[in-house]
Amino acid sequence: MENKTLEQLKSRLAEIADLSQVASIVGWDQQVMMPQGGAALRANQRATLTRHVHELFIAPETGRLLEEVRSYEDSLDPDSDDAAVIRVTRRDYEKAVRVPSKLHAEISRVASEGIQAWAKAKEESNFSVLLPALERAIELRQQYIDCFDGFDERYDVLLDDFEPEMKTAEVRSVFQRLKDELLPFVRALGDEEPDDAFLTGHFPVERQQAVCHEVLNLFGLRPETWRLDHTRHPFVGGPGGDDVRITTHYDEADIDALFSTMHEYGHALYENHIPAQLMRGPTGTGASLGLHESQSRMWENLVGRGRPFWTFFYPRLQETFPEQLGDVELVRFFRAVNRVHPSLIRIRADEVTYNMHIILRFELEQDLIEGRIELSDLPEEWNRRMDEYLGVEVPDDARGVLQDMHWGAGHIGYFSTYSLGNVMSVQLWEQVREDVPDLDERFERGDFAALREWLGERLHSLARKHPPQEILERVTGSRIDPEPYLRYLREKHGAHAV
Amino acid sequence: MENKTLEQLKSRLAEIADLSQVASIVGWDQQVMMPQGGAALRANQRATLTRHVHELFIAPETGRLLEEVRSYEDSLDPDSDDAAVIRVTRRDYEKAVRVPSKLHAEISRVASEGIQAWAKAKEESNFSVLLPALERAIELRQQYIDCFDGFDERYDVLLDDFEPEMKTAEVRSVFQRLKDELLPFVRALGDEEPDDAFLTGHFPVERQQAVCHEVLNLFGLRPETWRLDHTRHPFVGGPGGDDVRITTHYDEADIDALFSTMHEYGHALYENHIPAQLMRGPTGTGASLGLHESQSRMWENLVGRGRPFWTFFYPRLQETFPEQLGDVELVRFFRAVNRVHPSLIRIRADEVTYNMHIILRFELEQDLIEGRIELSDLPEEWNRRMDEYLGVEVPDDARGVLQDMHWGAGHIGYFSTYSLGNVMSVQLWEQVREDVPDLDERFERGDFAALREWLGERLHSLARKHPPQEILERVTGSRIDPEPYLRYLREKHGAHAV
Repeated sequence: MENKTLEQLKSRLAEIADLSQVASIVGWDQQVMMPQGGAALRANQRATLTRHVHELFIAPETGRLLEEVRSYEDSLDPDSDDAAVIRVTRRDYEKAVRVPSKLHAEISRVASEGIQAWAKAKEESNFSVLLPALERAIELRQQYIDCFDGFDERYDVLLDDFEPEMKTAEVRSVFQRLKDELLPFVRALGDEEPDDAFLTGHFPVERQQAVCHEVLNLFGLRPETWRLDHTRHPFVGGPGGDDVRITTHYDEADIDALFSTMHEYGHALYENHIPAQLMRGPTGTGASLGLHESQSRMWENLVGRGRPFWTFFYPRLQETFPEQLGDVELVRFFRAVNRVHPSLIRIRADEVTYNMHIILRFELEQDLIEGRIELSDLPEEWNRRMDEYLGVEVPDDARGVLQDMHWGAGHIGYFSTYSLGNVMSVQLWEQVREDVPDLDERFERGDFAALREWLGERLHSLARKHPPQEILERVTGSRIDPEPYLRYLREKHGAHAV
Repeated sequence: MENKTLEQLKSRLAEIADLSQVASIVGWDQQVMMPQGGAALRANQRATLTRHVHELFIAPETGRLLEEVRSYEDSLDPDSDDAAVIRVTRRDYEKAVRVPSKLHAEISRVASEGIQAWAKAKEESNFSVLLPALERAIELRQQYIDCFDGFDERYDVLLDDFEPEMKTAEVRSVFQRLKDELLPFVRALGDEEPDDAFLTGHFPVERQQAVCHEVLNLFGLRPETWRLDHTRHPFVGGPGGDDVRITTHYDEADIDALFSTMHEYGHALYENHIPAQLMRGPTGTGASLGLHESQSRMWENLVGRGRPFWTFFYPRLQETFPEQLGDVELVRFFRAVNRVHPSLIRIRADEVTYNMHIILRFELEQDLIEGRIELSDLPEEWNRRMDEYLGVEVPDDARGVLQDMHWGAGHIGYFSTYSLGNVMSVQLWEQVREDVPDLDERFERGDFAALREWLGERLHSLARKHPPQEILERVTGSRIDPEPYLRYLREKHGAHAV
């Protein structure tokens, strides 16, 4: 049964999806393929494209169609694709039209400038270079929050853009639980000499490329729907579905690219599994950053730093890098890639201490938004908490408050989704292990199809049809819950635990 | 002095340029980078993007601004950038609004289907597979012509889309002159055994890549503004200006990629030299297909098959492929890459007989548009003329009437620009040799800067500000004239001439 208004709405949304996919291609191209000289042209191209997509979406016509479709909507099964499209569009639209176009444009403009200021500030390790842009970014975020009402706390508005319908209070309580367990855990870590020198040395890039391709083929993506390229800061780009672009960063001195590739594989698989009939609409993508991160963390940490995977794959890795790993037994290698050790840089942190980096940022963001700390005091406050949470002394701002681009780009409320992903990844992991009890044995045989297919059928096929917590509950029977994750950390890293 | 209406018009045109550049990136991506599976998504992405660009352009607002700007236009120097933008926009607009959106969309749709039908027909070497699509394409072309008036002959309308303001009668007279000289020339070609077996064999692709990069660096493009990639059918893509994407096709069995790369270099240099201030508007590209081709033919044939270039570069080529060329003297190599020999396939033809392939197509296109031949008789007619013009027997349609995609894609009126490019290339060549008398000596030293800069300053900097024949006249003092080209062919290939 076809409804004309709905068809009109969907055709409008299809255009928006097409152009958004184009924007994702052009964004990927800029990071991976574009000659440097093309940057100025590209800035105009992207600004115009983004403005067109935004204007198409917030046009009164979208609102009119959403109003007109209400009665038809009531007749639909809420789980149907059509009901989800209407629901998600209405939510996105009601948020988008609250924000004046002028503010929207100003936020974009300041973000571009902020990224440049951040790059310069980091290079010079000088926070004051970023300060003016950051002040402006936070001012604009406050104006953005003022466009909304009905929130419990102001930070909720920011969080909602990355993790729809998640409240700050819930994140705070999850993180408090992590903090309660991880703080003593980190403090109890000994100072033993690590046995991981073999992870640094000479790993020829061509061989790393071959191994990364091998792992991606082993984990599995649909043929002819993906590619792997080199870039500076790894990400998954492209439209998703049948066109997924994985990127990684090779450094001849280590094999971090391998773990980074497994991480990006998790994101890529999620997008690769989006049902084709959803691709030309707002539900045709992952449900949230947190759920997306649960997928990347699962493949990087739960699979990719797991014993069964390495039981299968370590001989291949030794064959590939005999000079570095030929004499290193599996158990030594396995311990080395799972070493827990507080460090300065978030993106290089181990899976346990990583969360403390996130909690620190989550707390500082709220302090900034609520006006509890001055922006100029941020570096000092950062360094104080790095010492308190991780016992790490920060030598300079480049390796401290300036290490991440997010704030410079105006992304406030984003960081917490990384740890939410960690937490949710183990909830999903416990569920799949219940449903597929011989998962370890399969991995030891190099068979990852059962996990991949379980994720596709249970999680990925829901795409963005429901809010992330509802999806998590449908798949695992529970909203976000830190206990499975803490259990996992205790079991895996128990030797170090108090 | 700023004019508000003009600024509004230019800002609209800048948006159109931005989105057109995005379309060019996405088109390049599809040919060069996209995973095959992305084709269905990509078709929607491109259709939507193209429709948006078209609708922005033909909107009544464009027409209103063009009307309003008239009086200001009269006050401008006709050679100024602003006057050119208004002039070119008015011409494009007046053409575009004559064509109903429905016909425009139908032409696009049938073109996509036609390309698929052509691919299948060629694979099966069966013209009847293409026939229905071709019938429809020509029917639509007739409807398209009917949207216009004031032409001398119907074919003028089609030609004008590729070679603005050029008339069929002028092309016919140029081609008649070529035909008069080339027909006896081709007939007089002897049947001697060619000495070119060394051009076929084993040329490892990585080494070909290195040589192609070396030649591009030798000829010269601005740093960080270009890239070279592999594709099936070579072309230059990307926005142009500071972002030029050259593609080539490597075949391990020969070094055709080297000539193809030099050809594409000519196109790339033209786009690379477009003045930055024109890039966000309708004049920020080459002036016509014919002038573009004059650039690619110049670098491929006049430079790249010339004695001075090979005097410099042949030792490098020998070093690169010692197994194939180590024992082959320069003079043998030079003769082999300049061998004139009638053959079946246009894109593999030598620089002399190439024109007969074009003339044949140009004549058949007019016969089809004027209804002088039936579409179903096209293969027979093709084969008859291949015999008449080139003395070549066509063994099957795949190597005959189905060899090129153009007609399947609805491009009728396109082919002649290739030979117009040949003709114009030598007019420009004579002029640059007059202005830079020691060009050969420079090439022999590996110095291509003088030619590159002369082209940039005299020709490329005019971009699309004037019609192609006006540009040619500004640079060479003459409209299109076949005599320099015929002189060149007689001199170079005189040994074979009657």
